[in-house]
Amino acid sequence: MTSYKVMMLAYHSDPSMIYGKETGGMNVYVLELSKALAKQGHSIDIFTRQIDSKSKPVKIANNVRLIPIPAGPYVHVSKHKLHLYVKDFVQGIRKFMRSDNVYYDIIHCHYYLSGLAGLSMKKSLSSAPLLMTFHTLGMMKNLVARHSLEKETQYRIEAETHLSKRANHIIALSDKDRDYIQYLYDVPKNKISVISPGVDTKIFRPINKMTAKQAIGADFHHKLILFVGRIEPLKGIDSLFYALKILFVQNPKLKKKVCLWIVGGDITQQKSLWSEELKKLEKLRYLLGLQTQVVFVGQKPQNKLPFYYNASEMLVMPSHYETFGIVALEALSCGIPVISTHVSGISRLAEDSKDLYIIPANSPIDLADQMAKILTDTTKYKKIRHILIRQSKHNISWDFVARHVAAVYAAFFSTAVDKLVAK
Amino acid sequence: MTSYKVMMLAYHSDPSMIYGKETGGMNVYVLELSKALAKQGHSIDIFTRQIDSKSKPVKIANNVRLIPIPAGPYVHVSKHKLHLYVKDFVQGIRKFMRSDNVYYDIIHCHYYLSGLAGLSMKKSLSSAPLLMTFHTLGMMKNLVARHSLEKETQYRIEAETHLSKRANHIIALSDKDRDYIQYLYDVPKNKISVISPGVDTKIFRPINKMTAKQAIGADFHHKLILFVGRIEPLKGIDSLFYALKILFVQNPKLKKKVCLWIVGGDITQQKSLWSEELKKLEKLRYLLGLQTQVVFVGQKPQNKLPFYYNASEMLVMPSHYETFGIVALEALSCGIPVISTHVSGISRLAEDSKDLYIIPANSPIDLADQMAKILTDTTKYKKIRHILIRQSKHNISWDFVARHVAAVYAAFFSTAVDKLVAK
Repeated sequence: MTSYKVMMLAYHSDPSMIYGKETGGMNVYVLELSKALAKQGHSIDIFTRQIDSKSKPVKIANNVRLIPIPAGPYVHVSKHKLHLYVKDFVQGIRKFMRSDNVYYDIIHCHYYLSGLAGLSMKKSLSSAPLLMTFHTLGMMKNLVARHSLEKETQYRIEAETHLSKRANHIIALSDKDRDYIQYLYDVPKNKISVISPGVDTKIFRPINKMTAKQAIGADFHHKLILFVGRIEPLKGIDSLFYALKILFVQNPKLKKKVCLWIVGGDITQQKSLWSEELKKLEKLRYLLGLQTQVVFVGQKPQNKLPFYYNASEMLVMPSHYETFGIVALEALSCGIPVISTHVSGISRLAEDSKDLYIIPANSPIDLADQMAKILTDTTKYKKIRHILIRQSKHNISWDFVARHVAAVYAAFFSTAVDKLVAK
Repeated sequence: MTSYKVMMLAYHSDPSMIYGKETGGMNVYVLELSKALAKQGHSIDIFTRQIDSKSKPVKIANNVRLIPIPAGPYVHVSKHKLHLYVKDFVQGIRKFMRSDNVYYDIIHCHYYLSGLAGLSMKKSLSSAPLLMTFHTLGMMKNLVARHSLEKETQYRIEAETHLSKRANHIIALSDKDRDYIQYLYDVPKNKISVISPGVDTKIFRPINKMTAKQAIGADFHHKLILFVGRIEPLKGIDSLFYALKILFVQNPKLKKKVCLWIVGGDITQQKSLWSEELKKLEKLRYLLGLQTQVVFVGQKPQNKLPFYYNASEMLVMPSHYETFGIVALEALSCGIPVISTHVSGISRLAEDSKDLYIIPANSPIDLADQMAKILTDTTKYKKIRHILIRQSKHNISWDFVARHVAAVYAAFFSTAVDKLVAK
């Protein structure tokens, strides 16, 4: 098998952060994909913007290096300003390539900002095909954001439109993602491959519920409903609060038994420093009288998440837009039922998995109905967790994902390279 | 039959505006309900905030008076500031009652601001039951607005919560409306009656498509898709634009045949003075390359609307939240198929009407699919329009609505008045 030297661009978010507090789906995707590609003999350098003056290139697995590149200040920078330092990022990569004497066969960009960096890199690596994974799409974010099209956003959409034309190939994370790229960005269907994310089934596995509850300090008598994700309006957490309120009005006995745990968001600081969305949710918690039934748990590292999943009765993903929804896969891999809105990429798995329930977005009554069904379905917890067997059948391991991605890479180097790589 | 003297409070929006440009569902509801109640022998005074220094009490039908009351400046005032003048409004009504020597049996309030006025009126009319029709709910608006809970909004939600407790009875416009009032505002189910709006089947009736197209100046060869409503984010017009774009990518031949007409919004002024949402949509129209396929028609008076409905292939109501969605009823009454999101109150009619199609909100691909089906279903336009017969069967006339509302009024005056009216 041919092995490739891959430049993986993760400009705006450092994938190694999943070992700390940040557990975003994109970071998991980039890191796990890179590791799995490396296991198959490819060599991966992940480039990310340096946010700590002391950080250095580090080997994070055999054949996987994480290389921080100085670009802009050594602090967190708002997404709306990050495009200002893309040029520095590209120059930094070129400098690294010279000093390390390294060349790449493939440029694989994650998120549009990395795409912009990738386009510039083509000047130095003109024979390397440019692959694009958007992760989220500006046009779809706008649809759910309910805000005016700001200048910044217009910039992002124009950049994505440009990248859709210029990239040699696009990897979409789900059928829905593919459809929107195809229809809204005018991309020919054959220029897009759908490759869903995977899950590390060694980490995300069934664990005894009581063991898991003990590990996270949860009351043995409580039934936990779990949310995992960033605290952002498009995650629809307010809808979940409404649903919980409705659940309790409809089933008053559950009010003493059921708790909603929100994993995500920085709750380590004073409340006055909380994000706008977290403050809004905190107000809503009180407005709906859910003070004791909703717990903000804060961010948790990736290796602690299996305990949260396994301690819970279900994961709820009430998003207004979700390119895929990797946390749903993690929960299913632990044998935990998932309620997801119809807008997530994972919703297509509904036909395959009896542990996945699909509801319309923004419909707290439907969500409450579905939560009540799972909470009162006692057989659900008696049955043996067949889920992992089903998963291996569906090939959702990262090795499987990496093989598919490598096949996309390989297509550029089989025959008629010039034709394929030509713009 | 007993006849009642009803104080109809429409503080923030003058129902007579439907004869001009404003065609909001609430104005239609208050005016048509009042006229229908009057026909049944009741006597209705509609009080509204005076926005023109010259306007005077006017008889708008037999037994229906519209009485403008000075409260705040004689200009349009932002909804967020209107609560400041509720007190003046109440004093003005008291003054009118003294000079006119009139007393009321019922206080029926529309929208929470009128509810606040109604609560104050109880001091003068302690024996009159207070009836509340919310029309829209602050908590549901917040759910779709994707904004932080601002102070104003918090005020509205608290007011609605207070009114839910203090009103003697609540009239909900749909089953969904009732559910949300019951669950989110903690109102006992038996304190809420569901009475859907009606439609004036004499005005909204089938008309020959070519006659209708001629009346509105539409190209005979174009197939029209129609949107009717206020230009506001929660109406989901951006989602409709995306769907149109998708429709054209999937069916390129339709691009020369199909036009989307947007009825609503003030487009009479310079573009620089357009509302933020209208500007956003104008940008989106260009971004998606729909310059010639989307037409902003502007506001149209109620009596012109039947021509727009009849000239169209379908009405699309892509709202994120809609207490009922009276325009859908108007379109159906003209025999025009309607695509509505699952969040509208009218969605429950889907089982009854083959001309009503329900899709999830925020799902342009589903919307495009549904539009394509209607546009390519040629038998749809050959079949005789049975819709009016079906409607009379379903009793959606305003007379039917008024009889139900009067029955709610009557419940307070049958037996045990004191017990019923007691707080």
